Amino acid sequence: MSIKAYAAMAAKQALERFEYDAGPLGAKEVEVAIECCGICHSDLHVIDNDWMMSAYPLVPGHEVVGTVARIGEQVSYVKVGQRVGIGWQCGSCGTCEWCGKGEEPLCSQNRATCVGHYGGFAQSVRADERFAFPLPEGMKSENASPLLCGGITVYSPLRLYGVQSHHRVGIVGIGGLGHMALQFARALGCHVTAFSTSANKAGEAGRFGAHEFVVNTDPDALKAQAGKLDFILVTVFAPLDWPTYLAMLRPHGKLCFVGAVAQPLTVPVFDLLFGYKSVCGSVIGGRTMIREMLTFAVRHNIQAMTEVMPMDRCNEAIAKVRNNTARYRMVLKN
Amino acid sequence: MSIKAYAAMAAKQALERFEYDAGPLGAKEVEVAIECCGICHSDLHVIDNDWMMSAYPLVPGHEVVGTVARIGEQVSYVKVGQRVGIGWQCGSCGTCEWCGKGEEPLCSQNRATCVGHYGGFAQSVRADERFAFPLPEGMKSENASPLLCGGITVYSPLRLYGVQSHHRVGIVGIGGLGHMALQFARALGCHVTAFSTSANKAGEAGRFGAHEFVVNTDPDALKAQAGKLDFILVTVFAPLDWPTYLAMLRPHGKLCFVGAVAQPLTVPVFDLLFGYKSVCGSVIGGRTMIREMLTFAVRHNIQAMTEVMPMDRCNEAIAKVRNNTARYRMVLKN
Repeated sequence: MSIKAYAAMAAKQALERFEYDAGPLGAKEVEVAIECCGICHSDLHVIDNDWMMSAYPLVPGHEVVGTVARIGEQVSYVKVGQRVGIGWQCGSCGTCEWCGKGEEPLCSQNRATCVGHYGGFAQSVRADERFAFPLPEGMKSENASPLLCGGITVYSPLRLYGVQSHHRVGIVGIGGLGHMALQFARALGCHVTAFSTSANKAGEAGRFGAHEFVVNTDPDALKAQAGKLDFILVTVFAPLDWPTYLAMLRPHGKLCFVGAVAQPLTVPVFDLLFGYKSVCGSVIGGRTMIREMLTFAVRHNIQAMTEVMPMDRCNEAIAKVRNNTARYRMVLKN
Repeated sequence: MSIKAYAAMAAKQALERFEYDAGPLGAKEVEVAIECCGICHSDLHVIDNDWMMSAYPLVPGHEVVGTVARIGEQVSYVKVGQRVGIGWQCGSCGTCEWCGKGEEPLCSQNRATCVGHYGGFAQSVRADERFAFPLPEGMKSENASPLLCGGITVYSPLRLYGVQSHHRVGIVGIGGLGHMALQFARALGCHVTAFSTSANKAGEAGRFGAHEFVVNTDPDALKAQAGKLDFILVTVFAPLDWPTYLAMLRPHGKLCFVGAVAQPLTVPVFDLLFGYKSVCGSVIGGRTMIREMLTFAVRHNIQAMTEVMPMDRCNEAIAKVRNNTARYRMVLKN
């Protein structure tokens, strides 16, 4: 069974047409006919081999929405014809401590959808049935697909680190991740402050849920936030003046990273002691959290704002993500 | 009413005899006749004006045990003749958000026992009655006094950051703070690993509760701890190789500082993301937590191991703390 896809043949290369034989379908696998697939920053990292774990030919794509086309003989959870989403992870052992706790990203045998496995810039993709999530009705596929990775990436830390509705939350970076984080934090009942270098995003940030908008190249505006926030979610990759952000936290506040900022953080210990503050991190989320996130998103009409392009223009769409000109998430459609 | 004490007349000076007029006793104050007072590292910091907030003459001492000698006219909580302990904090507003939550160290009007107020290297000391804690029977005063600051400093983060009995806890630095932390972590039901530069502390660390002892100048011994600990409490002031300690954490693990390490921490963000790890801090603890700690300590026979010297040898005792030759806590006795 041959699958048509787009692949990078080596690190940092443009994608080209690529066809592969997926072999026999595993007993617990599903094959999903792809309707659309979002482009995430981590697709660029794996194309470029930034994390030194890419294998080529590399078919990117891990924000898939599609229809179950075939199921393995032991599949019982999803049905042929059902609309499902697939995110960063497409498999895990199912038996270890972390799978048992619903924290499958921590499983030592976790499998990524587009690293050592052909991803979603394709006609079809395969996954363990446990990682094919039925999508609630009322979600448009192209606006839902970025939830599968970007959405869970920002929702999971809000839940994991105990953000509560009376809290004041800061979202740093209003892009692919940040514009979804604003919506989730607002729907959780929080006071929400958006931080962006782009003053022209203020209006949209407000429509996504921000009560306040801070241009974070303005030192005075940053200082005015001192001691105001309970939780700050950093969705950017650039190094910022982290002590200034720590100073924005109220006691017990947390500064949480979901983007892999390349430069190490430099944090004065004093800034943590007085006020019982934390610096912490989070990546994606487990199966249960993904299902919860989807249910919560449909209840609150949370969706990604997307620009849709046909799959065969994938290189053009990737360029928009590289240039940070996507508003706010690129989605490829078959 | 004149009180005899020992004071530093300027930064970094030896203490000398000093007598002060404490003025009329406040309506909600108590005056405590001091039986003994521990010496804490923070006494050295305030003597030396390391934190740029000292006022001279400076009477150090904030690990007091004594007997209530006089009470203000509105005091109702403690009685004359009662044995009480006083720690770092001797007052707060009593009405703000943080006082309301039992987190008085966060009160903007928090008063320190020995900064801008004459401390416990003296015959007597005063405090708001709310910060004079009745000591449970069965605690020897000289072994209990270090609990009032050092004890709460290590107990509070174990509680605050959700350490549970099935967790594996590392205690870095087996000195004044660390030897109490070992006892608390063991009594909480945890598996306890001691980290020290002094191989000759292994036996005592075991008696304080450590199941394992790691000489933390041995890189192989540190590597062997990778992925083993849920919580690491850092009681030392020296900069260590923090990424190595982060690598020792299990998922959701926390690296917690209670000592003001002078050099900023440098932490790779990647090390936080994968595993949902935190770097955090804590100082002392609120009134409710102090009372809980004292109750817990007497239940589990937790006490400081002390060397007792008469109050008039305070400079000699301070020198032992400076030289790290105290085993494990110096206590001055009247």
